[in-house]
Amino acid sequence: MTDPSVPPVQLVPGNSLITKTPEEGRQLAIKMARLVIKVTQPDAATRERLRPVYADDPAMLIAIGHTVALEFATIAAANKYWT
Amino acid sequence: MTDPSVPPVQLVPGNSLITKTPEEGRQLAIKMARLVIKVTQPDAATRERLRPVYADDPAMLIAIGHTVALEFATIAAANKYWT
Amino acid sequence: MTDPSVPPVQLVPGNSLITKTPEEGRQLAIKMARLVIKVTQPDAATRERLRPVYADDPAMLIAIGHTVALEFATIAAANKYWT
Amino acid sequence: MTDPSVPPVQLVPGNSLITKTPEEGRQLAIKMARLVIKVTQPDAATRERLRPVYADDPAMLIAIGHTVALEFATIAAANKYWT
Amino acid sequence: MTDPSVPPVQLVPGNSLITKTPEEGRQLAIKMARLVIKVTQPDAATRERLRPVYADDPAMLIAIGHTVALEFATIAAANKYWT
Amino acid sequence: MTDPSVPPVQLVPGNSLITKTPEEGRQLAIKMARLVIKVTQPDAATRERLRPVYADDPAMLIAIGHTVALEFATIAAANKYWT
Repeated sequence: MTDPSVPPVQLVPGNSLITKTPEEGRQLAIKMARLVIKVTQPDAATRERLRPVYADDPAMLIAIGHTVALEFATIAAANKYWT
Repeated sequence: MTDPSVPPVQLVPGNSLITKTPEEGRQLAIKMARLVIKVTQPDAATRERLRPVYADDPAMLIAIGHTVALEFATIAAANKYWT
Repeated sequence: MTDPSVPPVQLVPGNSLITKTPEEGRQLAIKMARLVIKVTQPDAATRERLRPVYADDPAMLIAIGHTVALEFATIAAANKYWT
Repeated sequence: MTDPSVPPVQLVPGNSLITKTPEEGRQLAIKMARLVIKVTQPDAATRERLRPVYADDPAMLIAIGHTVALEFATIAAANKYWT
Repeated sequence: MTDPSVPPVQLVPGNSLITKTPEEGRQLAIKMARLVIKVTQPDAATRERLRPVYADDPAMLIAIGHTVALEFATIAAANKYWT
Repeated sequence: MTDPSVPPVQLVPGNSLITKTPEEGRQLAIKMARLVIKVTQPDAATRERLRPVYADDPAMLIAIGHTVALEFATIAAANKYWT
């Protein structure tokens, strides 16, 4: 499962889309969305500086919500909607 | 179902995507969209301050509608479209 | 079907995604998109004031079209594309 | 098929998502995207005035392309990808 | 297959979504995205003038990537993911 | 598999959407998103100049995340979610 070319940032925690519950699927969606940001902007100090910018900007908060919804759609399908 | 690592905000009310009707599915979509905002901006006072900003901005209202539509697509598929 | 916690705005007219024709499905998509706006900005006077803003702004008109397309995708799938 | 409550603008030309070819499916996607704009901004003179605005703005041209792609995804699925 | 109402711009090269490989599917996605722009802004000189605008704007480059991803999703499904 | 009309940039590394794990699928999604940017802006120096612009802009970082999520949805479906 490990591979010498794997980047320092793990993009899919646990390397699986399968979760026990919708709640955990939603948490995974948020984590996966954040990890793409992390790999695109690897500098932790910069990410920390940007946090209050988007957290106080309603348009960006909505855009984050949109991205999480899209990640979640994939995770939900992978889990056959937990039904 | 509960887990010590669950964050204070519950992301999927009832921990299920299944609803009795489309109307309840739509309400769930709106709640799930809001809960991502809540977990990204946990400060209630800030969220309250931002509310009139987006509620008076047509572009943001449209973007909220877009996000809800995407959440609803997943919920509707989970419920096999209530048919 | 009715429930004491149902909000004053009905989000899915007829509480069903099933329509007789694609044309009616498209009308439902537009209505559902508008009803999310209505529940987010419940003040009718404000919505009326915002109408000429987005109706004269090509970027917002395109964004509305995008949201309706997404709502319609769900409705079309629910109706098995009316085939 | 006709109905007294049908709005003046027909939203789905031919009231069907089925087309003979992908090319015709793409044309339908463009038409359907335009008809949502038309129903949101019913004044023809205003739409005519807005045309050069979006036709000269690369961000809006890209956004139009995005919306057409989404409409087309639904039409393509309805036609089982013409295969 | 030809039809007197077909516009001068062909929107789907080859009038098919089927390609031999993912690589060719991706090329088709890019072409289809460009052809919607072409039909919306038919003037070649204007399109040429806009090219450096979006090619130097990271937000627009990202938006182009988004649109191509959506076109590709449809093409990939049409080809059953080439598996 | 090779073809004289293939452009200099390969758009789908390995010419396949199939990966061994979700992690590798996510890496492929990021690469595919970047390769569309590369083919749209082929000048490496320009791309290098734009990198700090989007890497310091939270709205653009979110938009990149959105595009990657969409590419990943297709890759995940192609791999039947690795289940």
